[in-house]
Amino acid sequence: MKQGRLIVVSAPSGCGKGTILGRVLEDKERFYYSVSCTTRAPRAGEIDGVHYHFLTRERFEALIAEDAFLEHAEYNHNYYGTLRAPIDEHMAAGQDVILEIEVKGASQIRALRPDASLIFIVPPSIDVLRERLINRGTEERDVIEQRVALAAEELQYAPDYDYVVVNDDLDTAIADFCAVVRAVELKNIK
Amino acid sequence: MKQGRLIVVSAPSGCGKGTILGRVLEDKERFYYSVSCTTRAPRAGEIDGVHYHFLTRERFEALIAEDAFLEHAEYNHNYYGTLRAPIDEHMAAGQDVILEIEVKGASQIRALRPDASLIFIVPPSIDVLRERLINRGTEERDVIEQRVALAAEELQYAPDYDYVVVNDDLDTAIADFCAVVRAVELKNIK
Repeated sequence: MKQGRLIVVSAPSGCGKGTILGRVLEDKERFYYSVSCTTRAPRAGEIDGVHYHFLTRERFEALIAEDAFLEHAEYNHNYYGTLRAPIDEHMAAGQDVILEIEVKGASQIRALRPDASLIFIVPPSIDVLRERLINRGTEERDVIEQRVALAAEELQYAPDYDYVVVNDDLDTAIADFCAVVRAVELKNIK
Repeated sequence: MKQGRLIVVSAPSGCGKGTILGRVLEDKERFYYSVSCTTRAPRAGEIDGVHYHFLTRERFEALIAEDAFLEHAEYNHNYYGTLRAPIDEHMAAGQDVILEIEVKGASQIRALRPDASLIFIVPPSIDVLRERLINRGTEERDVIEQRVALAAEELQYAPDYDYVVVNDDLDTAIADFCAVVRAVELKNIK
């Protein structure tokens, strides 16, 4: 059986990453979505084992001690981490593992796993992103400006990624993302 | 305007490379097919500027002296070479340049142009290739065995390529080749 590939996906918020990944992940035989671990409390609607593995601090620290994490970090007094074993198991079973992670986590994965392919989903421009967030109408203007500022910062990381998919038209972005994933499957891993 | 990409394609004979490339090259705005130069005489049906640029030995050697070739080599007392200028011009104009070349030429391009993406089209197996050549019925058995032996040798070069497309089913191979080409367009050139 052919070994699956490790595919790391990042995107500033508002770039349609959820929609694009949702489409790709419909093929559950081909892809395995890597669920992160966290010590933060579940939010309304979040399901353990689907959105995150929700762990106690003690359990998380025991896993750190066991070197069970490919990467982990602490934000706002909560741990977040990616378990190593499920990734290797699903890849060995021939599935592509999709790992959704923010830009700094992606840099860590790049260093730890040279076999990983990193895909960055970006808006056509910061102005278009701002316009979309405003049109969505779900957030106050100052929250939108914070998101836009964070996105501008994250976009600086684009050169760290192997492939950049611009989400201008959603259908094109989905097709482009699928093309990159297929190419990654056909790539010689050095 | 976005810079085009340099895409190098190799395949043992009988792998459907001509058919796959023919399909892709229908899009003449997006792609430019790099025409090689040679000092050998045109064969029946070969058109100057389409199949090759047919040059005199004097002209070819003058171009060598001018460093006009990205790569060149001599086989059977004839020169073959790839001009540098048209590649750069068409890439600068935003077109992807498709360069069809055998495995040793591809290795040279790899060293000279780290921005190039190398795609290798291969048969599902040597046995399938032999069967296809036999079924085609255009060649004697000993010629087929020579081709098969050469293909087996060329397949050793697969690890030198960035992407390997297996031509088992032709439509799948065309789709895979197109996915790789699109991914190459979305690739960050380091």
